[in-house]
Formats: sequence, C-alpha cells, structure tokens
Amino acid sequence: MKQSKLPFKTRKEDPKDEVSQNAKLLIRAGFVHKEMAGVYSFLPYGLRVLKKIENIIRKEMNALGGLESHLTSLQDKTAWEKTGRWDDSVVDNWFKTKLKNDTELGLASTHEEPLSALLCDHVRSYKDLPFSVYQFQTKFRNEARAKSGILRGREFLMKDLYSFSRNEEEHNEFYERVKKAYVSIFSKVGLGEKTFVTFASGGSFAKYSHEFQTLTDAGEDLIYISKKKGIAINKEVLNDEVLADLGIERSELVEEKSVEVGNIFSLKTKFSEPLELIYKDEEDKALPVIMGSYGIGVPRLMGTIVEVLSDDKGLVWPASVAPFDVHLVALFDKEGSVKEQSDKLYEELTDSFDVLYDDREAQVGTKLADADLIGVPTRVVIGSKTLAEGKVEVVDRKTGQSKLVALENLISELR
Amino acid sequence: MKQSKLPFKTRKEDPKDEVSQNAKLLIRAGFVHKEMAGVYSFLPYGLRVLKKIENIIRKEMNALGGLESHLTSLQDKTAWEKTGRWDDSVVDNWFKTKLKNDTELGLASTHEEPLSALLCDHVRSYKDLPFSVYQFQTKFRNEARAKSGILRGREFLMKDLYSFSRNEEEHNEFYERVKKAYVSIFSKVGLGEKTFVTFASGGSFAKYSHEFQTLTDAGEDLIYISKKKGIAINKEVLNDEVLADLGIERSELVEEKSVEVGNIFSLKTKFSEPLELIYKDEEDKALPVIMGSYGIGVPRLMGTIVEVLSDDKGLVWPASVAPFDVHLVALFDKEGSVKEQSDKLYEELTDSFDVLYDDREAQVGTKLADADLIGVPTRVVIGSKTLAEGKVEVVDRKTGQSKLVALENLISELR
Repeated sequence: MKQSKLPFKTRKEDPKDEVSQNAKLLIRAGFVHKEMAGVYSFLPYGLRVLKKIENIIRKEMNALGGLESHLTSLQDKTAWEKTGRWDDSVVDNWFKTKLKNDTELGLASTHEEPLSALLCDHVRSYKDLPFSVYQFQTKFRNEARAKSGILRGREFLMKDLYSFSRNEEEHNEFYERVKKAYVSIFSKVGLGEKTFVTFASGGSFAKYSHEFQTLTDAGEDLIYISKKKGIAINKEVLNDEVLADLGIERSELVEEKSVEVGNIFSLKTKFSEPLELIYKDEEDKALPVIMGSYGIGVPRLMGTIVEVLSDDKGLVWPASVAPFDVHLVALFDKEGSVKEQSDKLYEELTDSFDVLYDDREAQVGTKLADADLIGVPTRVVIGSKTLAEGKVEVVDRKTGQSKLVALENLISELR
Repeated sequence: MKQSKLPFKTRKEDPKDEVSQNAKLLIRAGFVHKEMAGVYSFLPYGLRVLKKIENIIRKEMNALGGLESHLTSLQDKTAWEKTGRWDDSVVDNWFKTKLKNDTELGLASTHEEPLSALLCDHVRSYKDLPFSVYQFQTKFRNEARAKSGILRGREFLMKDLYSFSRNEEEHNEFYERVKKAYVSIFSKVGLGEKTFVTFASGGSFAKYSHEFQTLTDAGEDLIYISKKKGIAINKEVLNDEVLADLGIERSELVEEKSVEVGNIFSLKTKFSEPLELIYKDEEDKALPVIMGSYGIGVPRLMGTIVEVLSDDKGLVWPASVAPFDVHLVALFDKEGSVKEQSDKLYEELTDSFDVLYDDREAQVGTKLADADLIGVPTRVVIGSKTLAEGKVEVVDRKTGQSKLVALENLISELR
C-alpha cells in the first residue's frame, strides 16, 4: 500500500477528547476514527489489524470444530422475555429500536437467546450433540460511560462461541479445550506472558467462570496473581473458600490492574430450559441441552495490545497482528534515483510481504516519526547514502536495532 | 465438513410464513434462519456463500484501488442534520435508538454522511485526491413491508464504495471503471447473461444513475431492455428524451421484471458542500470534493442467484460462490466397507477441495434429495456397487449428467 495514495493522516497532537492511551495512539496513527464515545470506525490500517486478530481467533475456533454462523443485530423480544432478560431493569445496557408498526426490537448485546431459539428448529436427538457455533458479530452495549477507547465499546466486534452438550462431562471437556485455545490465542497475539487465567464469579449456575486477564494499568479490573501457580483470582470472588479451592495462600498473591480480554462461562441449562432447547437421549427421555459461552471482544484485544506493547514513540505491533510486515521508507533525493530504486524494491517486496510504502514527498523526520508511530515491526529505509554501497537500512521497531543489508540479501533477511 | 457433525437440518416442507422462493429454498436447505420479516441469520452453508460473494467483490474493489475501512452502525445525528436527512419525514426508513442520556442515534442505513464528516479530518489538498473507500457493513432499513426474503432486508450486509475526486472528469473516469468492475462481479457470480446496465434516475444532481438489473420474476422493478444495445431503461425514467439520449427506439424495448443487484450514483457536491469536505487546489482555492457512491447488497445478490439459477429440486450454485466445491455422498453398506473407503476419500479430497461429506446414517433417498436441495456443483456418490469396480459416480448438479470415474482418476477429474 502506497502512503501517497492514502488520504488518512497521522497527527502529532493527542486528540483532546480522549483520556485512554489506546485511543490517543490509534487516532494519532490513523488507525481509527472516533464517531462518539465508545464508537470507533476502523480506517485501513486499523481494519487490517482487526482482521489479523480475527483470523487468529477463527483458526482456533475451527480447530475446536466450531461452526461459523452469523446471527442478526436486530433481535425479537420473544426469546428474551422467556429468559426474563428483556426488561431494561434486568439488562441495563440495552439499545432498543422500533419497527414501523411500533414493535420493539433489541440491538444485539449478546446472542444466547436468539441462538438457543434458532436451534430449537434443528436439535432433536442426542445424535445432534455435542457441537458449537461461533460468529464474529457486532455487539451493542449502552454503556453509561465509555472512556477507555476501544477497550470498552458501545458498538464492537465480538467473537462469541456457544457450546451445546449432552451432559456436564461432555461440557467440561469442551470447556477445557476452549481454555487451551484461548491461551493459544493470547499467546499468538503477543500477550501470552501478561495474560492470566483468572477465577471469577460463575453467576447463578456455576461455581466459577474463567476470565483471561491481561496486566496493564489501563485495566478496569483488579486481580490477585499467584505467580507460583500461574493463575489469578478476580477481586470480586477473593475469599477464603476460593483460596482453599485453589490451594493458594493469601500471602503469595500480588494485586494488579488488568483488562479482561476473554471470558468463558458454563451456563448449564440457564437458557436451554426457558427456551426449551431440548434433546431426546438414548432412552427417548427429553433433556435440556447443557450450554457454555465464550467471548472475546476483538477491538478490546487490539486495544490491550496497544496498551501493553506501545512505547513513547508510538504503536509497536507484534508481527502476527501487524497491519503490514514491512514498512518501506524512501528518503528521496533530488535526482530521482532513489525513487526509481525504491519503486522497484516495493514491487519486489510485495511478492513476498505485505508492504506499506512511504512514497510521500515529505521530510525525513516526518517519515521516520510516522513510521515509529504506525509501528510496523520491520522498517526498511532506502536513501542515497546507503544505496551508494548497494545497501538499505533494516530497523526493528521494537528494539530500535538497525543494520545495513545488501539489496540482494534483503528478501532472505526479512523472511 | 461432515454433515454428521452439523446440527442444522434440511426440511421437506416450505416454511409457512414465506412467500419468496429464495427464502423458502434457503430455509429448507439450512442456509438461513428467519429471525423476523426481512431479518435473516446466516447458518454455516449460507455464510460460506455470503463470504465467497464478498471476496469476489473485495478483489474487484481492491483492483479499483479502494481502501477497505469499517464505519460504525451507530450514527451521530450532527452530520445528517447538515445534509437535511436526519428527519424521519425525509428518510422514511430510519431505525433510531438512544443513549442512556437520551441522545438520539441513528442505525446506519447508508454512510455518505459519516464518511464525509470523517474525511474532513484528513483531506486537505488536491494531493490527497482522488481516492475511494469501501466497506462491507450492515445496513439497517426500516422497511414497512419485507416479503422478498433476503432480496430486501431490514438488516443486511452491504458493500458500499465511495469515491472522492477533484473534478467531474476524474469522477467520470472512476465511475466508468466501477461500471466495468460491476459487470465483472455479476458475471463472476453467474448472473452475467441476465444482468443489464440500466439507466435510472440520477436524483437531484446527475442526469442518470446506473442500476444493474437482473432479470427474474421475483423482481420488484420493471425495466425496458434493448437487446440490440445490451442496455436497459428503468420504467421510472422511460420517456422520449431518454430514448433520444440513448439512441433507442421504443419499438425495440422489451418489458421485464428484474431485481436491482447494484447501483452507482454520481453525487457531485451533494454531501461535500453541506459537510464542508473541501480541498485546496493547485492555486490554493478551496473547492468541494466531487463524490460518487456505489452499492451492492450482498444477501440480495445471493438471493438473486437463488431466484435465477435454482430448479425444482433445490438450489444450484455456480462454482464461484458455492458453499463447497464437492459434495461427497456416501451410501453406506452394512459391512462398513463403504464407510472406511469414503472416510479415506474425504480426507484425500479435502487436501484439494472444500468438501461437504454426507456421512450421516440416513436413507439413500434422503441423502440424494438433500444433495439436490443444497446444490453443491459437483456430487461424488460412493457406494458398494460402483466401488466393486473401483469407481465412484460423479454428478453435475446443474445438468444432472453423471458418469463413473475410477477412484485413481477422481482428483484430476474434479479439477
């Protein structure tokens, strides 16, 4: 992608109406645009990161056997009335709207109800189970406050996976597999070391749910980590019983601020009973399906990567989720010979890599500062000085380390 | 994908609450689920088709230089008030909702306003132009009636492309390139012969807009085709002046029902003036940007393919958008030897193709009828009778023609 063809600009100054570091940096670098508090549009760089994260998650969901579907944002109240969650006093972050005939509709805040209702048309026998369904779909949540940038959206893309099992044992087995898949996802996006499986409230049906909490001062949660065990406990459930359950001494716990980047819930029959999602077992006995739900907010995960990995120069993307593999920065000379060679190099590199090419007529300082701000992992700087020796400079964004590489070795060096 | 692992079922009977052929077939075949009139969830088969169409469109948009972005569904009224389109009496299909503090928000029916407003932060000089931005994003339209299945949704995925040019000439050049890209898209999804570039009303700013109309009795539009010229005129603009413009005699026109599968509009400065999307030209003169917008409703396109290409046995997908390349249908014997060989064949085929594998314990008649209903282009039937000769039956869904193919030649035959 040629920067000269992009209208989107970087900014030197922080936007005035943002307090969160992720939103400040992402807006300054031209990754997102704020439509209103908690509502962000994704510009080309930002969408690329979002899609890369999405694809890392999708692979793991497919490996679990998850069936990708796509439910709707507009929701009928019928299913929600059956579970008692339609009323705004029960679910306090509904957005609602109306059809022309005044029928009230909900905007999807989650999809347990419509998915369970939908499956009543399909699930009949124990032979249909177990299975799991997932989607990447927009969620709407009418948050009273939304000051954390893309960490807490009023509208955001969520991966939500739902599992349907015949019994607790089958459910627990799948639940543990999801836990492993989540560990793998957070590791792949570069947050492995900072992310802890955290015991949290299980709600009305299960003793615990599990959160995946990533350490950062930008977080809104407080967790207590046992480094020895490599697990954490959410402040909301920290008590002697929990400590005994987990075999942890209070003295070994360290308090940290964190962001919940994922959560997994055992739902038992909370939804299947009221919605009558029933199957017949081997003895033709009617039983409610055992459910689980498993969420990851994709922009929240992206925002957490920004909070954890950025530095004072700007964004620092791990290669796995970077908008581009290589940032080719051309320092043009007056004679035009650099341009000729950098255009040629761009064409060559695009065969093997996703390349952002700074082919703008701009000052060297501006170009290098923008490259730092945008945060592509590897920068290739091409200018007349090094070209005289047939070389370009290769800079690692994270460490800042640079080296001169001969043009003929560049592609193998970048691999 | 193994059908034994899928909970989703086909149905023999049409759903009672659908009048449109596309919805009847897609629901019966397990591609979509109706949440309410005009609001459909996409199940795994259906989502696969939608994604294939999306990717065909995406390639063409990228070839035009379109910059993929993703704007939000929740929209602030400010920009809409500037263009005078916030009021429900002006735009009659708004869905609106509210923040906790009673601020009214709109649900995206289109994105000219927010995109133009967003770009005011970025576009400054003639050097920033021309460019184009596109997205695949949900549109919400509060249709009074929605009886055409996925042809007219209250919520649907739309590809919307917007162009930004310095002058009419630059705009017209891009507009013509989009026209060609659209012709290519409709050809690639299998509707080329039935789809006509159609002259339609240009609204307040341009003399004409162009629609892409596909002939089908399911259509809500009436168009007049000149087969000689290969173009059509929408009934709404058919008059002597238009005929003279296009050099067409009224006598050569044939009336047909059709679906509008795409449309392209010249917007001139309709949005850039009120929203002050201004650039400075070479002489530092401030000028409003010249815009165009170009839409394709992805589910509508999918529904049109269903309306045009299906037969009395069910869906018939062109290979380019089919949910799978190959439908492997195993007719199991009691001894289990077919299962062993079909499992092996499934593994082999998945290396080269997207395969749907009917490994269910079900009757032969049910399996073959389901395969016809689902409509994968190529069916491979494996049973003990042909296996005795080392062969399988390969059936073309569209023509019904079948032939026996030796197992060792199967993969090369299917390519």
